[in-house]
Formats: sequence, structure tokens, C-alpha cells
Amino acid sequence: MSETKEEKEREREMINEELLIQALEEENLDLFREEFTALHSYDQGKFFMKIGDHLRIRLYHYLSPEEMAELFEGLDIEEDEYQPILAEMNPSYAAEMLSEMYADDAVDVLNELDKDQVASYLTIMDDDSAKEIKELLHYEEYTAGSIMTTEFIAISANQTVRSAMYILKNEAPNAETIYYIYVIDEDKRLVGVMSLRDLIISDDDTMISEIMSDRVMSVSVGDDQEAVARKMKDYDFLAVPVVDFQDHLLGIITVDDIMDVMDKEASDDYSKLAGVADMDTVDRNPFNAAKKRLPWLIALLFLGMFTASLIGRFEETLDKVAILAVFIPLIAGMAGNTGTQALAVAVRGIATGDLEHENKWKLIAREAGTGLITGSICGVVVMVIVYVWQGSFFLGILVGFSILVTLIVATLAGALIPLLMHKLHVDPAVASGPFITTINDIISILIYFGMATLFMSYLI
Amino acid sequence: MSETKEEKEREREMINEELLIQALEEENLDLFREEFTALHSYDQGKFFMKIGDHLRIRLYHYLSPEEMAELFEGLDIEEDEYQPILAEMNPSYAAEMLSEMYADDAVDVLNELDKDQVASYLTIMDDDSAKEIKELLHYEEYTAGSIMTTEFIAISANQTVRSAMYILKNEAPNAETIYYIYVIDEDKRLVGVMSLRDLIISDDDTMISEIMSDRVMSVSVGDDQEAVARKMKDYDFLAVPVVDFQDHLLGIITVDDIMDVMDKEASDDYSKLAGVADMDTVDRNPFNAAKKRLPWLIALLFLGMFTASLIGRFEETLDKVAILAVFIPLIAGMAGNTGTQALAVAVRGIATGDLEHENKWKLIAREAGTGLITGSICGVVVMVIVYVWQGSFFLGILVGFSILVTLIVATLAGALIPLLMHKLHVDPAVASGPFITTINDIISILIYFGMATLFMSYLI
Repeated sequence: MSETKEEKEREREMINEELLIQALEEENLDLFREEFTALHSYDQGKFFMKIGDHLRIRLYHYLSPEEMAELFEGLDIEEDEYQPILAEMNPSYAAEMLSEMYADDAVDVLNELDKDQVASYLTIMDDDSAKEIKELLHYEEYTAGSIMTTEFIAISANQTVRSAMYILKNEAPNAETIYYIYVIDEDKRLVGVMSLRDLIISDDDTMISEIMSDRVMSVSVGDDQEAVARKMKDYDFLAVPVVDFQDHLLGIITVDDIMDVMDKEASDDYSKLAGVADMDTVDRNPFNAAKKRLPWLIALLFLGMFTASLIGRFEETLDKVAILAVFIPLIAGMAGNTGTQALAVAVRGIATGDLEHENKWKLIAREAGTGLITGSICGVVVMVIVYVWQGSFFLGILVGFSILVTLIVATLAGALIPLLMHKLHVDPAVASGPFITTINDIISILIYFGMATLFMSYLI
Repeated sequence: MSETKEEKEREREMINEELLIQALEEENLDLFREEFTALHSYDQGKFFMKIGDHLRIRLYHYLSPEEMAELFEGLDIEEDEYQPILAEMNPSYAAEMLSEMYADDAVDVLNELDKDQVASYLTIMDDDSAKEIKELLHYEEYTAGSIMTTEFIAISANQTVRSAMYILKNEAPNAETIYYIYVIDEDKRLVGVMSLRDLIISDDDTMISEIMSDRVMSVSVGDDQEAVARKMKDYDFLAVPVVDFQDHLLGIITVDDIMDVMDKEASDDYSKLAGVADMDTVDRNPFNAAKKRLPWLIALLFLGMFTASLIGRFEETLDKVAILAVFIPLIAGMAGNTGTQALAVAVRGIATGDLEHENKWKLIAREAGTGLITGSICGVVVMVIVYVWQGSFFLGILVGFSILVTLIVATLAGALIPLLMHKLHVDPAVASGPFITTINDIISILIYFGMATLFMSYLI
């Protein structure tokens, strides 16, 4: 059997890893640097996280703060892992590394530290970097401001392509992207944009004002990062400028950061649908995992207890017709299933922006219709099965009709609850699958036992 | 109250929309073209989908096939909507538009048509475009080959930066990205890569072989698109080259297509967790929505019937102790909740690649531990509540102990089932929340009633 490309890559990676560890252990600086600096920063970061802290401490002596900065930018770790790693470094080394990082990435790291730790790093750091970072630290998490970088290229419209190219070549080493060039007026207001592509195919003597586009799409510094991600995906931008309410250009957001946002937001929505508060990753130990999941489980436990007490009120009914208990999980389960389906569509619709104002009532009417259709079909199927199985016509009618009503109500609830939460400015993804399922358990049991009690005379 | 940036934008958009519709209706070609061509292709696409087909047919006369091609590339619609739209166009206009599109986007459209329709468009089209498209049509859906484009810039290593820049300027109008330049040998094998940034900051007389990086990261043409997306996200690439098994450069995949893949895969995983086969969007009518959801609901209905028949076997137990029925939804619900949590972590772990070979057993051991911890805590809580509420010590023990065992088994099942499916090369996301929930219903009821029947003598 031939190896796949991926397997071959993994093998090569492992050989390389062993070589690097050996070089570190034997204190072979030259060999280590030769191999390590040739790696992509993401692979450097993976290696960095894999070795223990005793080897990492050696690494800090082998790599310059600039080199470590690049590694750190590509690091793909949990937020709470930054602090212990920084603590391994000499403070002045750490401060220099932070000042060499792109400001937005440095801010991501600093956001995870205590306030006094941040202050002490900012004090040792060179003034320019400290100033830049301080400005970014102001912005609230999950806003455009918190993920933007200030290392962009901005020029004035009143110059030629030749002089713009000259500026570009000078600023290229420090800018996070050189593929969009922003045009500002004397008050630093954003007035235009052009791509490096436009610049390159233009004649050297052309004026910037002639080739720039003055319909610039931008985002506000307070915009939600998810909305920014949606915009960049829809418009296929590699970077988007961030402005304040007077259109002053404050920074840019690049597509690599946006991919991280998309990935994180998708993970969050997914976790919440499953009722895992915060993202629980495969690497945590059981105690941490249990800590993340228990709040949900305990909350659902009490809701479940409430369901139990509801059934308890129908104990008399149950005592007379024990067979009723047989269909509890079926009816509750169907309510949960259809509710989760409706929920997912509504939450996704809100997240992708498909669900604008005009569509909400349409969605509710649509879900009512869907519930009616699925309820009718499932109801008839259940009625026939129960009738054949139990030989009781009235029991068939009761269970089938309960399924019909339950599916309509549960489908509507699945759509209405996230819409309501969105209106109340609560993240609709919080109305997770288990939550909807448990709510719908309660609804379905009320319907089922309510009808059973009402029509008891036909059942005995 | 001041308007937000987004509200202002929407307002402007709506005014613009009305103006455009009016211009179309009044057959004011000049005004329409002036306003419309200034829009971003994504906004053009939104407008295009909003107006009815009678106005769209006028649009095809007002825009050239090239202009329509750009609009089509930015179109964000369901796959089954392409066919009716193409049918509105004159076939030669449609063929010319398809040939003007980037080959990967044209292939996306053609993939949705019948084979004879594709053949007829390819026949009218110019030969070069038809050849390019035919090659791409071979690749299987969801592979790197199916999303790559063949419009990239490749040069040989044996030339100066000056001559490379000359090639670049010439090819820029047709290439999908000019920000990466790939270096190939005489057999068209990929040997190096450099960014436009590297090119721009280098001296004109430098040889390409000196500045290119020969550690090129590439993907195989048969790789899964999700794996490609993961790689681009991890390594922050704006484009990645696609090669065959002999490293011949076949095409490139750009980041804008990858964002669409990430979005689609996230939607798919989310929908499947909720048990909505395929993505169900908010715009569908109730019949279509019901059609998408019914297969799941019916399957779950039969599983639920099986659960009911299981409880039916314990009818004797239930007849004696009707109070047992009260706790069925609680126990089944908790099993479903913990199973969904464990499932989400495992599916996400598989999707993000965190769950490599070495981690699988760790995950299983971890989930067993998590189930033990959450089960113990929830079990004790339930035991106390049931004891206080019902005044029966043995009932408390029975329900509490059932919760403990159920949570351990259900948590393990939630992790094991997706892992097993992954091993059997079935998409683990198919093991959706409702599926796991229903399986866990069955497990929990067997545990609960099994124990109740066993210890019946203590309960009466």
C-alpha cells in the first residue's frame, strides 16, 4: 500500500522533531538553528509546545526575541496557556519579544495576563511598541478593535505610482499586509483604497487619485468580530480597514485573523448547541472537562426534576393506565429532536445574517407549517403502529394526536426561543440543544398527560 | 439615538436599490450602468437575486458577459438555484460568461447542471476555456482538485527579479492571485515559492533562485477540502499550490474559496449535530423544510418506538410501582445531554485534527473519567432530592445510582460512536445529537428498569 502525502509528511515531521530534540539536548546550537529556522512558524510553534519546559528554557537562549516573536504569532494554543509560558522567559526577553510581534498578536497574549504583569512588560518595552499596544488594549474583546493591527500602509492620494511604490518598499518589512494600500486625507480620514495589483499594473507616472477606488468598504472599531468575518467572507477581502465614527483610519484586520475568528465562532456555536459551556478541547483532563460540563448538566438536572414533578401530578392517571408510561420517551424525544432542528436553522440564520428583519415572521410561519407537516406524518405513523401493537384504537389516537400537537409546538418553540434571545441581545446560541430538548420535554409531557387525563374514560 | 454604521449602510443600500430598479424599469441604460458597475460584485449579486426574472432578463442586455461573470463569481446562493438562472440567459451569452469566469467558479456552476447541458455550453465556449474547465470537471467534489483554479503565476528559477516582475505585470489581469509566485522546473514540478512581498523588496538583479523558498508547502489534488482549509488556517497562507503525486503543479487554492469551505463545513457539522440532513436555510418553504427533516424524524421515531417496546417489557414492574415512570424523562434526558456533550468534543476534535492517533485512547479514558465525576455528583444530588421528595430511601438510591451508571455509559458512548465512525471512514458528524440522544435513551432505560426489576422487593 502506498503512503498518502499526509502520512509521508507526518513521518518527515517526526524525524525532524527527533533531530531537533537531540540537537537541543546535546547543546548543538548550530545544527539546531540551521534546522529550526528553516521551519514555518506554525511548525516551530508545534515543536515548541511539544517539548518540556526544561528544553524550552534552552530554546530561549538559542533564538533571538525577533525569532521567538514570529514563533509566538503562529502559536495555536488555548488562551490560558500563555501566562505559564511567558513566566518561563526572562522578563526583558519576553518584553522584547512582545514588542517585536505584530501589535494585534501581542495584545492577544497580554489580554491573558494580570494587569500588573501587563504594566511591567509595557514598562520594560521600547516606547513606540508600548504606545501602540496600549492603544489596542483599550478595545473590548470580540470587537473589530480587539483584532485589528496598526501596522498598515497608508498614503496620500496626491502622488504618483512611482512614489507610492517607494513608500511601499520601505514599509513592507513592518506592515502586516502590503497587498492593500489605503489612501487617507490630511486629517487621516480614509478616502480610498487600492490593491498592490492595481499599483503594479499601472504606469509609474499615474496619479494615485486616478487609480484608487473611492468606494471603500470599512468596518467600525466597535463592530462585532463575527460581523467583520461575515463581511470579509462575502466580499472576498484579504484585509479590511477599521475606522472610528468620523472615518479616521485606525487599523486593519487581515484575513488570517479572520479565519481564526471564523473557526472560533463555529466551534463556539457548535459547543453551545451541544451544551458544552466554552470550548472543551480533547486535551483537557477529566476534572477540567467535568468542570466545564457540570453547570449545564446540573441546570438540566433541575429542569428534569421539574419534568418529573409534572409527571408526578399525573400519578393517578398513571396508576390507572400504566401503559401510558411506555410512550413518554418517544413523545419527549420527538419534541426534543424537532426542537433542536428548528433551533439550529434559526441560530444559523441569525449567525449568517440571513435572518434580517423582514424574514423573522416568515421564519415563524414557515416553522409552524413545517411542524404541521412533520407532525401530521409522524402522528399518523405512530397512530397506526400503536393501534397494531397495543390493539387499542383510543390509545393510538391519543399517542398519535399528542405527537402531532407536540411537534407543532416544539418546532415553534425551537425557532421562537433563539429569536427572542436575539431580540433581548442574548447570544441565541446559548439556547443550546439540551436546553431546548428539556424545555420541549416539559411541553410534550403536559400535552400528552393533559390529553390522557381528559380522555381517561375512553382508555380504561 | 444615533444610527449605527450598519444601519446607515443598509439605508444607503436600499436607496441605491430603488434607484437601480427604477432605472431598469424606465430602461435608462446609462444611469443604470453608471450606478451598477460602481458596486462591489457581492452587492451586484445581492441585487441580481432580489429582482424578478423579468428585470433580470433586461439586465443581461445591459451587462457584458465579462461583467456578468464577475457578478456570478460573487453570487452567494444555494447550489440548486444556478440552473434556473442560467436558463434565463441566451445560451451563447451564458457560455461566454462561463468562459470569462475563473475556472474554479465556472466549474462550481457547471457541476449543478445536467451532463448534456454542460456539454452544450462547453461546445459553444471558446476552446481554451472549455479545455481548462473540462480538466477541472474531472475532480471529485470536496477534494482540493474541485476547488482549485488553474489561473496562477508560475515562473522558472533561472531568471532575475526584473524579468519575473515583467511576467507578473503581463499575467496579473488573468491570475486569480498575484501575491504568491510559484517556481517550477522544466518538468513543471513545483520547486519553490515566493511572495510578491519578497519580490518587491528585492533588488532588480537578484536571481529568483536566491530569494525563493524551496520548502514549499503544498496539498495533493485528492486531499479533502476540509484538510486544505485547516492547513491554510494554521499556516496563514493566502493561497496554497495543488500538486499531483509527482509534485507537478496543477493549480492553486485561494483563501477566499477556503473561507467559503470553512463556512460550509461549519454549517454542515452544526446541522448534523442538530439532525437536519443537509443545510436547511431560512428561505425554504415548509414543504422543502419538512422534506429535509423528515428522514431524521422518521428514523428517530422508529428508534423511539423501540425504546417504547423496551419499556413495554417492564410493564409488570411499572404496574407495581407506577412512580418509576416519573423519572423516565429525567434519566433519559441526562443520558442524552451528556452524550451530546461528549459527541461534540469528539467530532470537533476529529474535524480540527486535534485527535491524532495517539490521542484517541487518551480521549476515551478522559471521557470515562469525566462520566464518573459528573455521574457521581449528579447521582448524589438526585438521590438526595428524590429521598426528600418521595420519602423513599430505596427509590433515591435507585434513581441516583441509575444516573451514575447512565452518565458513565452515555458519556463513553458519545465519544466512542464518532471515533468508530471515523475509523470506518463514515463522516462522524452523521452521528448527530438526536441520534446519540435516542441511543442513550435506550441505554438509560435498560439500566434504570433493569435495576428497578432487580431490586423490586425493596421498592414495594
